[in-house]
Amino acid sequence: MSSRTVSKGQNTRETIVERALALAVRGGLDKLTIGAVAEVMQMSKSGVFAHFGSREDLQLAVLELATRRFSDEVFVPAFRQRRGLPRLRAIISNMAQFYLQQSNAGGCVVLSASMEFDDQPGVIRDRLIAYHRQMRRELVRAVQMAVDSGELRAEADAEQLEFELFGLMLATHHHLQMFADPTAVERAMRGFDHCIERWRKPD
Amino acid sequence: MSSRTVSKGQNTRETIVERALALAVRGGLDKLTIGAVAEVMQMSKSGVFAHFGSREDLQLAVLELATRRFSDEVFVPAFRQRRGLPRLRAIISNMAQFYLQQSNAGGCVVLSASMEFDDQPGVIRDRLIAYHRQMRRELVRAVQMAVDSGELRAEADAEQLEFELFGLMLATHHHLQMFADPTAVERAMRGFDHCIERWRKPD
Repeated sequence: MSSRTVSKGQNTRETIVERALALAVRGGLDKLTIGAVAEVMQMSKSGVFAHFGSREDLQLAVLELATRRFSDEVFVPAFRQRRGLPRLRAIISNMAQFYLQQSNAGGCVVLSASMEFDDQPGVIRDRLIAYHRQMRRELVRAVQMAVDSGELRAEADAEQLEFELFGLMLATHHHLQMFADPTAVERAMRGFDHCIERWRKPD
Repeated sequence: MSSRTVSKGQNTRETIVERALALAVRGGLDKLTIGAVAEVMQMSKSGVFAHFGSREDLQLAVLELATRRFSDEVFVPAFRQRRGLPRLRAIISNMAQFYLQQSNAGGCVVLSASMEFDDQPGVIRDRLIAYHRQMRRELVRAVQMAVDSGELRAEADAEQLEFELFGLMLATHHHLQMFADPTAVERAMRGFDHCIERWRKPD
């Protein structure tokens, strides 16, 4: 295969995943079918199968794209902030903004998929669990850096703070999806301040 | 129709809804079909249709049973506690325990359905939104009673506290479903104490 053919195949694959993600955001990852993707791509089903061995492979590729987008919007810009409270605050603020952006498009596909697949053992559920573990580790690490920087007191429980902060994020997503309430983002940041104040070192 | 016939029909209807709820807990309310329910009931599809005019009617009945169960386990016992912090604490504690019990059975069907239907306009989504609004009102009221009882300071923002407490509940459900982590319940109650301490009146 010439490099041009590889590149063309690669582009088609990427386009399929993009379109499939848009479908999954609207209808749920668990309801994504090769047939529906073939239709929006104006391709035959076998044409889609040429790029993905199975529906599950396509779902995994969609999940990978969705989590990469999340990371690009949330963690990448936050990592440009100084370690400690500025970075932790940026992660939480970017995450709330991400959910706000997604709220018009049907919500966060990864959070939805986590609910859809939580009782369906298999590679998708395993990938989702691995993803959430990694996200939890990143958040705990960001909290710990705020302890190491001396901004939070040494007795701050990073795991507990992660739990509370992630809860604020889930409440934000819930309020946006159920009540279409954009003030959820402000509530989340007020909640963040409450969580942090408790452990903040006096100046 | 004799009262005995009515009663028998009523019993069959209740049994169908019970079985349908069990299916929805495992597979999701959005994937519940009359066919699947007929199968577990060992009835014909038309037999099930005789009790529910449509799949949507069955889904609504399942939702009603699920929310009644939640209320029976969470709010009813909490309402036996004194108004104020004891009642508020009981609601949160019962809710965390409810999610713990449900975690073996596939999680809370109402929370899952809220994600499944949040981008599917229609009566089910409307019912879910109405339900969450009601739950939010109940929680805000319980917080407000703790202000009225003098246990929390007058400047406590009941809406904000509700947001933070509901976030803890969503984090509990998430940790149970994704990480099978029963310590989530303790984390939730520690989070509750942190939220309350901030606004508690000094003794």
